Amino acid sequence: MERNLTNDVQLVTTQTIEIDQELRLESGRLLGPLTLAYETYGTLNDTASNAILVTHAWTGDAHAAGRHSEEDRKPGWWDNMIGPGRVLDTDKYYVICSNVIGSCKGSTGPTSTNPQTGRPYRLKFPIVMVRDMVRAQKLMLDALGISSLVTVIGGSMGAMQALEWGIHYPDMVRSIIPIAGTGRTSPMAIALNALARQAIYNDPLWKKGNYKPEHQPASGFALARAVGHISFLSEESMAMKFGRRFSARDGLFDFFGQFEVERYLEYNGNSFPARFDCNSFLYLAKALDLYDVSWNFSGMEEALERLDCPSLWFAFTSDWLYRPEQTEEVVDVLQKANKPVTYHLIDSDYGHDSFLVEPEKFTPYVVEFLRQLEV
Amino acid sequence: MERNLTNDVQLVTTQTIEIDQELRLESGRLLGPLTLAYETYGTLNDTASNAILVTHAWTGDAHAAGRHSEEDRKPGWWDNMIGPGRVLDTDKYYVICSNVIGSCKGSTGPTSTNPQTGRPYRLKFPIVMVRDMVRAQKLMLDALGISSLVTVIGGSMGAMQALEWGIHYPDMVRSIIPIAGTGRTSPMAIALNALARQAIYNDPLWKKGNYKPEHQPASGFALARAVGHISFLSEESMAMKFGRRFSARDGLFDFFGQFEVERYLEYNGNSFPARFDCNSFLYLAKALDLYDVSWNFSGMEEALERLDCPSLWFAFTSDWLYRPEQTEEVVDVLQKANKPVTYHLIDSDYGHDSFLVEPEKFTPYVVEFLRQLEV
Repeated sequence: MERNLTNDVQLVTTQTIEIDQELRLESGRLLGPLTLAYETYGTLNDTASNAILVTHAWTGDAHAAGRHSEEDRKPGWWDNMIGPGRVLDTDKYYVICSNVIGSCKGSTGPTSTNPQTGRPYRLKFPIVMVRDMVRAQKLMLDALGISSLVTVIGGSMGAMQALEWGIHYPDMVRSIIPIAGTGRTSPMAIALNALARQAIYNDPLWKKGNYKPEHQPASGFALARAVGHISFLSEESMAMKFGRRFSARDGLFDFFGQFEVERYLEYNGNSFPARFDCNSFLYLAKALDLYDVSWNFSGMEEALERLDCPSLWFAFTSDWLYRPEQTEEVVDVLQKANKPVTYHLIDSDYGHDSFLVEPEKFTPYVVEFLRQLEV
Repeated sequence: MERNLTNDVQLVTTQTIEIDQELRLESGRLLGPLTLAYETYGTLNDTASNAILVTHAWTGDAHAAGRHSEEDRKPGWWDNMIGPGRVLDTDKYYVICSNVIGSCKGSTGPTSTNPQTGRPYRLKFPIVMVRDMVRAQKLMLDALGISSLVTVIGGSMGAMQALEWGIHYPDMVRSIIPIAGTGRTSPMAIALNALARQAIYNDPLWKKGNYKPEHQPASGFALARAVGHISFLSEESMAMKFGRRFSARDGLFDFFGQFEVERYLEYNGNSFPARFDCNSFLYLAKALDLYDVSWNFSGMEEALERLDCPSLWFAFTSDWLYRPEQTEEVVDVLQKANKPVTYHLIDSDYGHDSFLVEPEKFTPYVVEFLRQLEV
């Protein structure tokens, strides 16, 4: 009974749905049949009008809230946002989160079996764009009988998906909430992903993607993750967390002696290959690099002209990966087109990761935005 | 005769000086005898009172100006600053630039022969700090009969050396001009160097520093250089130079297809091992990480209290490696201590590299500063 006193989502299970059809990707290639992993929290109402789609970032998954077992040490990645009485209130909303295609967390991706060969796709997997991920989500929602979304909300790559939802399924989406996003990935972000890629390619264990699952190119992959990690943090958050402290275990004048920040990056990088597939990481990095809302439109104006619903945007002052200017570029176009758009620049020291670390800084605006939608 | 019509420094040769003494390093270890590579431009006057010391950055060298031969394609790294009638006017000043210890460009470093073993030091080379580099430069100037410097000027690691000169040899230095510097390296800068280090350590050819000079760990070293390269650029300069252009040679949906920015980083990284030693790169990265002007003082205030001469500081708006705030931290302390300090925040889009790319943005202030010194 004790757990009922909390506001936690109760125990949840990741479910999968099989979609027996081929999806034509932006590249022109076909992908299918598709499997999508997803979780749901709350209850779909009789009119199926209370669904919210939560979209995840690069290495995220369908497990946005709750715990998989009583022993689970950590809840889902946005658990502080989702639950009874929380921002995405599961007493009111039916919240759905699905793993994107291209990932390795239950949805069809490079680790899945290629139906044409009976073996894992690996680098035979087609390049997917964020638009393709959203198209696959649409097929999933169709199969689940959901034809209306109160909102689509997500950070980083999740923000890209939210925007694509608003543009490509305007009849289905009542609002979108892109957080720490961008209308098109900057050359700086691409350059950082290029470092991550090269770190993996340099690892002899990578074998052009033909490593065995139990023998990932761990050194290169750990370094690639560390590149990402740095870009998610900020000067300020590093200063707060590590400063210039030198590892107590090392000698300052030892060649291999480390500062705390270095030890942290190494540790976190090394723990990563155990929970993510390297090829998936590369495919999703590619999807991030290729992201441009104006893809297949004449420009950003034409693309954003299709966004009819209210949109609520957040950027963070210390985010240097997808800088506030990048959100503002999109918001400016929407404002000039007289679209119903709201933008908040949130003062946070936690860099790109602010949307995960300090949700309380922006959630009051989300609550109010959702309340207004009901009116 | 045609060359005399130009303002170029004429042909120059890198010279070396042998200092037959052991330098006690900050680590407590002894290093010696020492070799220092240097170049000079202009003529030392009768009273030896017109000398200027130019200090170089991470992978720089003594070759700051002029050409080594008529066929030389590229002049020295700060040629646009040094020459007859230029900012550092060789009709007036005797300009000296020396390669730091720890480097591989002629001064004692990891590629030098360890007198105790008769073989290259490699990782037996002691950790050197910027303060040690400056101490070695002092021995060199002593040997050259120079006991007074009009100024010490340099960018990045060169700025650190200029500051150390001002603090540790106040009787010898009449002014300092630190550009794009910092009073202490930030955890972000350390984290980026950590990526570079790990890229090298991951390369099986590195062999803990015991590679043959002709078989450097080229893949890892190229990646390490690319990390540095990114940190020297800025969001703006990358947008100007590359934007989101995709390589014309690649297919957008090819797994190995590259954006222009990625191709550029790879190309530049790959050309680097031919002109720099990997162990030296690592030792100098370590010196950068360890840099803290307050090292062996009670704090920044006590360290900077020793700076008596006028100092002229520049930071660049788009520099995210050593951010303007880091220069301002030092300048604030100097101002509070009523030191003669001048600071200019220069609006430039070229990131940390601005001091090399857009000198015209700050050189008028340097010219005026040097003119005032004469009064």
